[in-house]
Amino acid sequence: MIKASVMYPNKPGARFDHTYYKNKHLPLVKARMGAACKSYTIDKGLAGGAPGQPATYIAMCHIFANSLEEFQSGFGPHAAEILGDIPNYTDVEPVLQFSEVVVG
Amino acid sequence: MIKASVMYPNKPGARFDHTYYKNKHLPLVKARMGAACKSYTIDKGLAGGAPGQPATYIAMCHIFANSLEEFQSGFGPHAAEILGDIPNYTDVEPVLQFSEVVVG
Repeated sequence: MIKASVMYPNKPGARFDHTYYKNKHLPLVKARMGAACKSYTIDKGLAGGAPGQPATYIAMCHIFANSLEEFQSGFGPHAAEILGDIPNYTDVEPVLQFSEVVVG
Repeated sequence: MIKASVMYPNKPGARFDHTYYKNKHLPLVKARMGAACKSYTIDKGLAGGAPGQPATYIAMCHIFANSLEEFQSGFGPHAAEILGDIPNYTDVEPVLQFSEVVVG
């Protein structure tokens, strides 16, 4: 199994609508990807590792798929619609990473 | 619920022993934290978002706890031992972030 981690850097003054992200954006991703998205998780950044340090990422999601190929086949055809929804909740450009799930 | 995400930046030439991390380090964390660590997950970085781009993080773990306070009370007394184990599997300094689990 793999996960696609979408990480939104926490910049001063960054705009991020966590409610829209939870209630609209990720349900849209799941609806479009169908079975290629096995499940997903959402994180809201609270704090960094040192006292008073902000979180590195204002939000993250992790989308689980059987393989990179299944993720891409599910996401690719809907990429324009899904990416086009991003300005509705943030002005931050996310960082994307694919990982192997070693312990899930 | 919160998660502590420990993220190891993927630098050229970085050393990371994924087997030790899975079989020794995280079991040590769980053993020392006890019930304060509800569960954990481990990721091994595969790729970035663009073709040929490396993963931002060579590895990540996410440790789940009921609250920041429970995490700290479980981790704090064993911090020296747990952090002292890091050189056994990597020469990379991790980035730590605490997040609220919005969808888990």
